[in-house]
Amino acid sequence: MKIMQGYINFIDNNSERFIVEVFDFLRHKSISSQSEHKEDVRNCAKWLANHIHSLGLENVRVIETNGHPIVYADYLHSPNSPTILVYGHYDVQPVEPIELWDNDPFEPLLKDGKIYARGSSDDKGQLFIHLKAIETILRTNPEKAPNIKFVFEGEEEAGHSHLEDFIRENPEFLKCDTVVISDTEWFAEGLPSICYGLRGITFLEVKVIGPNRDLHSGSFGGAIDNPIFAISEIISKLKDKYGRVCVPGFYDEVIELSEEERKEFARLPFSEKTYCSELGINNTYGEIGYSVLERVWARPTIEINGIYGGYTGEGIKTIIPSYAVAKISARLVPRQDAVEIAEKIEKFLLEIAPPTVKIEIKRMGGGNPVLTPIDSIWVQKARDSLKLAFGVEPVFVREGGSIPICETFQSVLKAPPVLIGFGLPGDNIHSPNENFSVTNFIGGICAISIYYTLLGSNS
Amino acid sequence: MKIMQGYINFIDNNSERFIVEVFDFLRHKSISSQSEHKEDVRNCAKWLANHIHSLGLENVRVIETNGHPIVYADYLHSPNSPTILVYGHYDVQPVEPIELWDNDPFEPLLKDGKIYARGSSDDKGQLFIHLKAIETILRTNPEKAPNIKFVFEGEEEAGHSHLEDFIRENPEFLKCDTVVISDTEWFAEGLPSICYGLRGITFLEVKVIGPNRDLHSGSFGGAIDNPIFAISEIISKLKDKYGRVCVPGFYDEVIELSEEERKEFARLPFSEKTYCSELGINNTYGEIGYSVLERVWARPTIEINGIYGGYTGEGIKTIIPSYAVAKISARLVPRQDAVEIAEKIEKFLLEIAPPTVKIEIKRMGGGNPVLTPIDSIWVQKARDSLKLAFGVEPVFVREGGSIPICETFQSVLKAPPVLIGFGLPGDNIHSPNENFSVTNFIGGICAISIYYTLLGSNS
Repeated sequence: MKIMQGYINFIDNNSERFIVEVFDFLRHKSISSQSEHKEDVRNCAKWLANHIHSLGLENVRVIETNGHPIVYADYLHSPNSPTILVYGHYDVQPVEPIELWDNDPFEPLLKDGKIYARGSSDDKGQLFIHLKAIETILRTNPEKAPNIKFVFEGEEEAGHSHLEDFIRENPEFLKCDTVVISDTEWFAEGLPSICYGLRGITFLEVKVIGPNRDLHSGSFGGAIDNPIFAISEIISKLKDKYGRVCVPGFYDEVIELSEEERKEFARLPFSEKTYCSELGINNTYGEIGYSVLERVWARPTIEINGIYGGYTGEGIKTIIPSYAVAKISARLVPRQDAVEIAEKIEKFLLEIAPPTVKIEIKRMGGGNPVLTPIDSIWVQKARDSLKLAFGVEPVFVREGGSIPICETFQSVLKAPPVLIGFGLPGDNIHSPNENFSVTNFIGGICAISIYYTLLGSNS
Repeated sequence: MKIMQGYINFIDNNSERFIVEVFDFLRHKSISSQSEHKEDVRNCAKWLANHIHSLGLENVRVIETNGHPIVYADYLHSPNSPTILVYGHYDVQPVEPIELWDNDPFEPLLKDGKIYARGSSDDKGQLFIHLKAIETILRTNPEKAPNIKFVFEGEEEAGHSHLEDFIRENPEFLKCDTVVISDTEWFAEGLPSICYGLRGITFLEVKVIGPNRDLHSGSFGGAIDNPIFAISEIISKLKDKYGRVCVPGFYDEVIELSEEERKEFARLPFSEKTYCSELGINNTYGEIGYSVLERVWARPTIEINGIYGGYTGEGIKTIIPSYAVAKISARLVPRQDAVEIAEKIEKFLLEIAPPTVKIEIKRMGGGNPVLTPIDSIWVQKARDSLKLAFGVEPVFVREGGSIPICETFQSVLKAPPVLIGFGLPGDNIHSPNENFSVTNFIGGICAISIYYTLLGSNS
């Protein structure tokens, strides 16, 4: 506890400077998806590398890619300790609609205990927590510094991430024992959260083909099958009335939730009524026997993301269309395999398609689910750190979506990711008036300092 | 038969002139849907009115509308005879793609027994048959002339037909006992055909609404219903596996085909194999117990003309859409009522919609089916006329589509329509190289002369 007291004192004494520094970081207009900000992104990367260098980290590099640069640094002085890889991104979302902002998104403002600026929560502020944490250790107890590698990309908010290629091409260089990421949010304010699982995904596009051209629905209606009827029949057979996916073998590899996990989820402050009213729906719907959180976090599903066929303009056009298309994706949980599930879905689609139509199926890729067991040291020490820093028992959550970079870290580096984020549900990420709680920023620096220390001493 | 011999002699002696005249008619670029041809349409109407006047018809008028003009004329000298209203249209389809024509579409060409020109079959050539028929009677046996009213519109190929309004506003002026239309085609070459029934139609647009915005399919997939699943379920319940519509009461008012009608249809030269191969499908599909022709001509059906929901662009977007839309139409047969059927469908849609979504239904109008009983004098005399003129027993057919103007004539004027067309399946109407058989043109003049005479003497 003496070490921790040292951290707290250091952080307390330097918190104003930390905020001044993160403001400098936030002033860079590092919008990765807008080409007019290409130089801003580069300048931000340079600023970041300089700052990291000033902290005493080593091997600081701005690595060129075919897109925006990657910033790398490391500190590797404990040969017998595990190595932590910290991932973050210094690029930000566009700011439009600018008129809905109360302040200039690139002139940070401290108001009511929050930092208002684009990127304050997603992800510059959270990334900066890690830099201030390693600074805290190096300035107070340098011998406790863990083996650490920092990898910050500038393309998380753009389409293609060249970091994915970089990871695949440099597995030795990036070798590590766990990947720590702060780019997620707490389940609720005051409730520190660790995300230990992500769903995977697999995509298919199915085209149901009828006649060789659009036909007049008067001259042909009733004589032949209509691809929209056929595709509707196919779609309606993908799930049964209990919300379970009907694809044979779909659930074969699914790891059931443990009792502990179910209890964890159940104690989260979640109101189904508020959830429905916020979405404007009357009731939720899904696999019987599982709660909403269980279904989105830990149960696989099939969704139709889009459908089209025939006339979709205004008014009327009396045709039987030549074809109809559905975009299908399945969300996967450990240990479903994206390719195997795509194969099973494809086989089932061909089986249930009526003989009156032809079927073309295009596989569109996907990624596997990610899971870091709750009882692993990476997760357990994250819990301890959060509890010590915030004085609250943290909760274990999962995320229904996929974070492709996590899956790449897991599959290429064989390193389990731990998502220990500090955002809050009201941070307005990707929206006007993005903000980040100062409590979470400063408390996060403390928590991560402790986390690094606990991981570093694990040898 | 003496009268008929007189007709034949007159037509034989004047056939070359008839062709010269119809060429003049066809030279007018009366493309109603293209505003640059507005004057051409008007000039065509004037030419037509002048020509009709030269034949000795009376009350010739070019009636202005908010669109293109209507040409009207009559000849009413048999107070005790029924009155025939003849409908046709002098406007034509656009000619694009012009490069696929072998000749100038507005410089008619006689080749291999066919007249090549835009409008030769649809509908100037067929309209002209009626003018030459009344000329034949007036020049050989004027005392046999029937009570006749000609109404020719210039907007059949454009969107809105102002003739519909004109009919509704002038039912007394247009009063008649039957409406004769030559704007259809024979079932096959050498097989004169009378169309005595048209299907009606009713349109609905159904919007299935889920969450109040598109949602991330990772964060929400499995928790709530997806409107595309819901709309697919709804659509798949509209027909059973035997191809029958499941809407309660849908078939209540349907008049079953008579044995005679079924025999008529069955003797038509129709190959299901050729039909399928021409459409590029493996097999037909529809209500069990009825042949293809029975299904499209005399059985009602429901079709989905279009569907859309969610992401329909290239590639992937992982959303659960806020809504999905289907454009639904039902084809109706006597005596289904378009409004009643729309009500029944709407009720059923609301019944089968899952409780997880909201439904919005928009009625988009429609029209009732048309039927002129085969044993009516209007149809029977059409049969006699065709048989006498072409020496072949004509066939009775129906049409699966709707011709809105027929329904207006039927509902407003209470006059049963007879569709006695002279086109052939290979006429390329609406396409490049439209043509019209000279045999059918000249034979048609003979048939219509006889038909007018038979109807005129029915007093």
